[in-house]
Amino acid sequence: MEATTLTILHNATIVTMDSDSRVFINGGIVIDRDRIVAIDQSSSILQQYSSLAHHIIDLNAHILLPGLINTHVHTSQQLARGIADDVDLITWLHGRIWPYESSMTDEDSYISTLLCCIELIHSGVTCFAEAGGQHVSAMARAVELLGLRACLAQSIMDAGEGLPSSWAARTTDDCIQSQKELYAKHHNTVDGRIRVWFGIRQIMNSTDRLLLETRDAAKELKTGIHMHVAEIPYENQLVVEARKADHGTVTYLEKIKLLQNNLLAAHTVWVNSAEIDFLSRGGVKVSHCPAAAMRMLGFAPIIEMLDAGVCVSLGTDGAPSNNRMSIVDEMYLASLINKGREVFALGTTDPTVLRAETVLKMATINGAKSVLWDDEIGSLEVGKKADLVVVNPSSWSMVPIHDSISSLVYCMRTENVVSVMCNGQWIMKEKKILNVDEGEVISVARRASTELLNRAGVKIPNRMNFL
Amino acid sequence: MEATTLTILHNATIVTMDSDSRVFINGGIVIDRDRIVAIDQSSSILQQYSSLAHHIIDLNAHILLPGLINTHVHTSQQLARGIADDVDLITWLHGRIWPYESSMTDEDSYISTLLCCIELIHSGVTCFAEAGGQHVSAMARAVELLGLRACLAQSIMDAGEGLPSSWAARTTDDCIQSQKELYAKHHNTVDGRIRVWFGIRQIMNSTDRLLLETRDAAKELKTGIHMHVAEIPYENQLVVEARKADHGTVTYLEKIKLLQNNLLAAHTVWVNSAEIDFLSRGGVKVSHCPAAAMRMLGFAPIIEMLDAGVCVSLGTDGAPSNNRMSIVDEMYLASLINKGREVFALGTTDPTVLRAETVLKMATINGAKSVLWDDEIGSLEVGKKADLVVVNPSSWSMVPIHDSISSLVYCMRTENVVSVMCNGQWIMKEKKILNVDEGEVISVARRASTELLNRAGVKIPNRMNFL
Repeated sequence: MEATTLTILHNATIVTMDSDSRVFINGGIVIDRDRIVAIDQSSSILQQYSSLAHHIIDLNAHILLPGLINTHVHTSQQLARGIADDVDLITWLHGRIWPYESSMTDEDSYISTLLCCIELIHSGVTCFAEAGGQHVSAMARAVELLGLRACLAQSIMDAGEGLPSSWAARTTDDCIQSQKELYAKHHNTVDGRIRVWFGIRQIMNSTDRLLLETRDAAKELKTGIHMHVAEIPYENQLVVEARKADHGTVTYLEKIKLLQNNLLAAHTVWVNSAEIDFLSRGGVKVSHCPAAAMRMLGFAPIIEMLDAGVCVSLGTDGAPSNNRMSIVDEMYLASLINKGREVFALGTTDPTVLRAETVLKMATINGAKSVLWDDEIGSLEVGKKADLVVVNPSSWSMVPIHDSISSLVYCMRTENVVSVMCNGQWIMKEKKILNVDEGEVISVARRASTELLNRAGVKIPNRMNFL
Repeated sequence: MEATTLTILHNATIVTMDSDSRVFINGGIVIDRDRIVAIDQSSSILQQYSSLAHHIIDLNAHILLPGLINTHVHTSQQLARGIADDVDLITWLHGRIWPYESSMTDEDSYISTLLCCIELIHSGVTCFAEAGGQHVSAMARAVELLGLRACLAQSIMDAGEGLPSSWAARTTDDCIQSQKELYAKHHNTVDGRIRVWFGIRQIMNSTDRLLLETRDAAKELKTGIHMHVAEIPYENQLVVEARKADHGTVTYLEKIKLLQNNLLAAHTVWVNSAEIDFLSRGGVKVSHCPAAAMRMLGFAPIIEMLDAGVCVSLGTDGAPSNNRMSIVDEMYLASLINKGREVFALGTTDPTVLRAETVLKMATINGAKSVLWDDEIGSLEVGKKADLVVVNPSSWSMVPIHDSISSLVYCMRTENVVSVMCNGQWIMKEKKILNVDEGEVISVARRASTELLNRAGVKIPNRMNFL
């Protein structure tokens, strides 16, 4: 072990999220290159490692968390923030999102991913699962630059009505081939920070052959599948009618053996108890996106899924489905929404369900399991990658703290996130993104998004009397 | 008009919230002492007023909003943030909040109000309605110092089971007398920024005599009544049993003629359509507190109330019911929750309901109507008080902006709020609170809250394995 590569962070409340739920009230952590090599009380860490360390950083009683993991985000939709607020689902998809996405260039996608990732980093995210856009190489370029970790996926559709013409021509073979090429090109690149997954947009835009070949190709390449599942009642209804399943998408995916432990099912709102059981037995991971669910889809039975042993994590969804791309806010929302949802089962809310410690698990270790990466991330433990977040709890938004775990979930806001490290490298320090000029990305993104909407022919009506 | 008292703010997108919903894309506003004397295009304002103005401030394309109004907040509960997370309602009230509140000193309440108001100002609030604490004079002292505007109220109970002994001894006469004295002492003081209202904690802690005398005293003094109404099903049930009302609290309040236009009803979750009609016909104002509702109470029929013409505004409730005291976040939540709630009426969410412009009204002009102050605040208009908020929309949390009104509701976070003016005076500039030392308040509040919990005998169990 060489003295010049060790960094010590000490004098922090370290919430490890390990299997013993250890929290060091005054803890220290030692990082060697990209890995955690020690974690203990500050005093013991300093005693053992001070003489060997290249950097010794006093965290001034800040809180140290594992990097948060956003398991469902559309990075290429960031330039579409605000283009589809308060509209019905058909207008949302056919009138706004599809024209936008199908008019995007590779460069637009790069800019969109940069802007989105800047927001993710500010909200303490070190790893995300891309839900699927068109330009995976552009996404990879942005992820590489910013220093994040990601499971990227292409948005794949080989069927369905009303598709933009540029997409409608794609065959099933094109879809599989294109993803295999992306896998060959980007999987396990940039110091292992990028992995490539298979994407399935949703069952209504998939032939059976696509579903089956995706299942087999992902298995062969030992990677994951990211798919929107059971988002709206209409989807289930269509699956029952067209595919002769008993209930809906989940029942059908069970039948065709897609419910395996490498499937990351986003939303998964409209499922019955038999289907929850299928998800649990298959080891399927569910990405709960509270804001998008409330706004557009409905209340997923999260408590029931967790009770059945399903691994549930948190996602923001894309900017036009939510507007705030903040896992910090999604933690707060997950708690509120799922407490409130009990009204409809019990006649009153249940403030005791989905406790803060469970929500924090969803955003960390469950996130890591969801992206099939929990051997290296999701908790602060010796041997894992140094992906971590420094939180300043000494501001008006969190003081006083009588219950630090609940404060992280219910009080913390993005403005409390001060520094972020991924793979042993600081990517944000004292709220400054280190690897790009934030102001420049913002101004380029503004211009690009305006031009893109013009090209796509998307016009947003005024809500007030603009003079 | 003397040149030395005029301030011009120009080069801003001014969202006036006036009855014509005017938005000046590049607007200017002229302030004379505490009042708005002109509002128009920047060019015209500069041409007409530059030579007369003492200060000319370029707002660099920031957004100018009327000061936001928080119509339900317990300032004295700020030191109790995090003491009652994830617990049932009885533990919340009897085990945590009542011991806390009844152990508070005057000084505790002062510190709590300071800390709470700092958070309110950071979230763009210039006026709030206090839901009722014990130490109104201490609250008034904090409001005076910070420069905010407020309708203060005492927490009033003259009946009910399980009350702390120090409260149980109070007679109805004590309750009314104490409030009349507070009114005489503080109403319309500190440049008219403080008004004193009557408080009724809730019907389960009120005798009929208290309800009726409060109604008459408020009418006589031409002020408002702030009351928690129809919070939980049990409350309605008790009213039906004990007071022989047909449905619940609202039906009973209608019967005893308390439903008048000076009643601010907080929460008002469990009401049927006849009761919504009573609220509408009485001109009662409703404070919707989305976070607290989701967490503890249930889904108020907000869409139905608005459709029936009820004036609905937004509140944060107190820190132990919500944790984030941010009207900015409540706007976002109001939109999400009420779109989601439609699932239970329609089978799917309705993303088109409670549009952004309606939510913005709830936080501004409806807030002003709710606190009976819309002749002077709630919109940016000539003759009204200069209560306003400067928002920086050029950051990663809001860019790109394609729909500025929805961006304010769905994207804006507290970190976008840069400066706040109340009654013509800056009370926060570039995120710095001007009238107190924020760091000092935070450190005093930490100490005071720990001591208070010790005195109250409240202990918060650990959620994890603290080492």
